[in-house]
Amino acid sequence: MPTDEERMARVVLSCVGEPGEQKMAALVAQLGAERVLAELRAPSVVPDTLVQDLRARLAAVDPERELERAARRGVRFVVPGDPEWPDQLDDLRRAPVLNQRGGAPLGLWVRGASKLDELVGRSVAIVGSRSSTTYGEDAAADIGAGLAGAGHCVVSGGAVGIDFAAHRGALAGGGTTVVVLACGVDRAYPAAHRPLFDHVAEIGAVVSECPIGGAPMRVRFLARNRLIAAMTRGTVVVEAALRSGALNTANWAVGMDRPLMGVPGPITSEPSAGVHEMIRARHAVLVTSAEEVLEVVGEAGQHTLDFKRALPRRTDSLTVEQRQVLDAVPVCQPASADSIAHTAAVGVTRVRQILPQLHSEGLIRCRDGLWRLAPS
Amino acid sequence: MPTDEERMARVVLSCVGEPGEQKMAALVAQLGAERVLAELRAPSVVPDTLVQDLRARLAAVDPERELERAARRGVRFVVPGDPEWPDQLDDLRRAPVLNQRGGAPLGLWVRGASKLDELVGRSVAIVGSRSSTTYGEDAAADIGAGLAGAGHCVVSGGAVGIDFAAHRGALAGGGTTVVVLACGVDRAYPAAHRPLFDHVAEIGAVVSECPIGGAPMRVRFLARNRLIAAMTRGTVVVEAALRSGALNTANWAVGMDRPLMGVPGPITSEPSAGVHEMIRARHAVLVTSAEEVLEVVGEAGQHTLDFKRALPRRTDSLTVEQRQVLDAVPVCQPASADSIAHTAAVGVTRVRQILPQLHSEGLIRCRDGLWRLAPS
Repeated sequence: MPTDEERMARVVLSCVGEPGEQKMAALVAQLGAERVLAELRAPSVVPDTLVQDLRARLAAVDPERELERAARRGVRFVVPGDPEWPDQLDDLRRAPVLNQRGGAPLGLWVRGASKLDELVGRSVAIVGSRSSTTYGEDAAADIGAGLAGAGHCVVSGGAVGIDFAAHRGALAGGGTTVVVLACGVDRAYPAAHRPLFDHVAEIGAVVSECPIGGAPMRVRFLARNRLIAAMTRGTVVVEAALRSGALNTANWAVGMDRPLMGVPGPITSEPSAGVHEMIRARHAVLVTSAEEVLEVVGEAGQHTLDFKRALPRRTDSLTVEQRQVLDAVPVCQPASADSIAHTAAVGVTRVRQILPQLHSEGLIRCRDGLWRLAPS
Repeated sequence: MPTDEERMARVVLSCVGEPGEQKMAALVAQLGAERVLAELRAPSVVPDTLVQDLRARLAAVDPERELERAARRGVRFVVPGDPEWPDQLDDLRRAPVLNQRGGAPLGLWVRGASKLDELVGRSVAIVGSRSSTTYGEDAAADIGAGLAGAGHCVVSGGAVGIDFAAHRGALAGGGTTVVVLACGVDRAYPAAHRPLFDHVAEIGAVVSECPIGGAPMRVRFLARNRLIAAMTRGTVVVEAALRSGALNTANWAVGMDRPLMGVPGPITSEPSAGVHEMIRARHAVLVTSAEEVLEVVGEAGQHTLDFKRALPRRTDSLTVEQRQVLDAVPVCQPASADSIAHTAAVGVTRVRQILPQLHSEGLIRCRDGLWRLAPS
């Protein structure tokens, strides 16, 4: 368990720093938040630009007041070492830096009664384009519902388009879902999704690195995406154009060695181009259903699927030669074994052996020594 | 060059045997066709069923007459060792046996004036479902046209659906195409494609293992498919349901270590299910265009594609911090550096350095010490 001092120091740093500021994350991982805060406040530190900026803002932050402000909105601050801290987030310490963002979060602001670690212990990210198609939204909702039905939490970013469809699908599937925001969890971005976020807070959780009131800045989305990838067992991308932010989440998943999956679509659909590129480059596995996602993210031996086959047919067990003879048996006009042998290009000796075999399988009929197909 | 005797023996065996009869192919590869034929005719051979059947049919075949019959229809018989024999077909000797079919063909019946080896020296197979969608047919035609335009011959099976679209695309792209039939090259199966086959014979070639008059039996399609895979540098599957014959061609390509490619489609489309399964199982590479196919089948360093990107934007070269400040600059109502620093959560010292940089990039405007975005 973290000390109260450490927790308060993390509140302060969360309020003055920028999510995913990798230098800060590395310092805190090395020294602890309390020590980093003390160093920042100490007049002896050689001032660099980052330190100057932070120091100016430090004075304005009262961590007790921040926590109260959050609590009034039903929001708590969860830090590493707390029982509900999802340990998988610590993998970010060893992950590469992307877009100058990286490192483990100092803490997470969480809205929702459920324990965060329990929620995301078995979870899958479903992300994708805001400018999605009905096809993509249906796919995201179906896969979200399937995962939820199988007891997996669906994690996404709460945006319009694919994110919304994924959350909606998970809820429709009777499961839980977690929204990871790039702004404070008290804010709704987009505003139209406030009802969704309120509902998710009751069933799952709305989380963010940003303190109460934090604005949804563009760079915060890049930092946010690493949390979505880190929190989950794998990331499914449904529709992402070549410049979609969803590809940033995909890069995080790959950088963290988490399985990356992509749902294909028509090659004529721009929102699928980024997904196709991921699969083509073998960064992502192609998936078409929740079952296939589970096979990828499940533990060894769980959820394994047979190679997909259509329903078997009665003629599947025939040998090639039997098949050849069967193909030569006429549908209507009965024929002799000699004539069938000629058509089949199989010797008449063999044909005379095979015809009774096909007959006993119920595939052909015989009358007066002539043969024709049985009605199917 | 093969001897006349060897050639004639191959004509006879081609007329009495079944395409892809692997035992026969192996014997001929080992002993030569002349010796196999002599052994078959020799009364000393211990008769087994295959030999009995063949012997009964041997008597009826006059190779000279078969060649004449073929020649009258503009058809010649090409055998291994002939200058125009495509050597890549010999890879079938080392390929596995699928559906009890396998081995190199004894020879090919060819209709069309062009040299076969020149036609298929740089070639790609495009195959797929007969029950195709307009989406799949358009994809096959586009890729066929693109490959033809790049000087690659398109090889397919002449069936309705994807095959037809691939041939049509190659012809529309001003290139050549080869139809590989499961029946005699004098026959049109399906009958409605006779005009296509006649046209292909003028520009490319129509080929088959089957002698003149040979019927399109089901097992012959399985044998035919190995020729399509063997003749080409790679196989592209466009739409194949889980039971499509195109998956048999795909298996041949994999068995022969030829690159296998698949064109994805909507996950809701049954004709794409087999293709998705191939890609998911990593048997096939996902492709969406002729360029991507060329990258796969081209020689090392040829046709390499950059990782696909959308068009660059003016803001791509900005640092995260510059981006952060830019995002905080208002669209209409000009703001002070202090106010922008607050919104951006960047220190005001840095903001005062960055604003002039953004200004010199033409991204923002300044008036009376206040800043706003430049119209885009």
